[in-house]
Amino acid sequence: MDKAALEEGTQFAPRFDASGLIVCVTVEAATREILMVAYMNQLALDKTIETGVAHYWSRSRNALWRKGDTSGQVQRVVSLSVDCDQDALMLTVEAGGDGKACHTGRKSCFYRQVTTDGGPRRLIFTE
Amino acid sequence: MDKAALEEGTQFAPRFDASGLIVCVTVEAATREILMVAYMNQLALDKTIETGVAHYWSRSRNALWRKGDTSGQVQRVVSLSVDCDQDALMLTVEAGGDGKACHTGRKSCFYRQVTTDGGPRRLIFTE
Repeated sequence: MDKAALEEGTQFAPRFDASGLIVCVTVEAATREILMVAYMNQLALDKTIETGVAHYWSRSRNALWRKGDTSGQVQRVVSLSVDCDQDALMLTVEAGGDGKACHTGRKSCFYRQVTTDGGPRRLIFTE
Repeated sequence: MDKAALEEGTQFAPRFDASGLIVCVTVEAATREILMVAYMNQLALDKTIETGVAHYWSRSRNALWRKGDTSGQVQRVVSLSVDCDQDALMLTVEAGGDGKACHTGRKSCFYRQVTTDGGPRRLIFTE
């Protein structure tokens, strides 16, 4: 697919990387808060589109991962977007269960900010 | 670094991948809109923190990329967050210039949604 078709076309042609994965940013629909960044392979993407529930590919477990299967925090798909060169996805969801997307028990995986305060870099907790 | 320190500690220890890159989701501070997904290497991350202006690593050009150098859309860093297992970054920015982060001339790179309408998958433009 040429650059014009990739960027300005209506054909969905996600570009998986050498490992067969594409990065996915998952956003809560109501708040626009970024909940997590995860990966999908073709199977996870197909399952997500076909079922309307977020599926990812777990790189650590090397397995299909239906978000919420163990935690109850199922993510219902509101919309799925792709970026200009089709190598990143943005999934907008409504989170079920207690809405805590992060395995640490927090709503978002992004609960720490980098600070320097003029000194060495360190993290401060924001949730 | 053990899992507890990685996830619950205050040490910033970004985990670059085998190519020396870490994925970064860039968000507009005022609107929480996701502008783009890009990558940083250690150099781009250092420059971003030290200058307060977003730097990325261009995988296509294999070069440090100070966002806005050619377009004027410099991104001033409001905050930088890291996810639970420190393999993804979230950069919150104020965009300079005309605020259009995407090289296609749009504000966000995520300007197309996947739809099926019960038929084959295709993209519809949202911007």
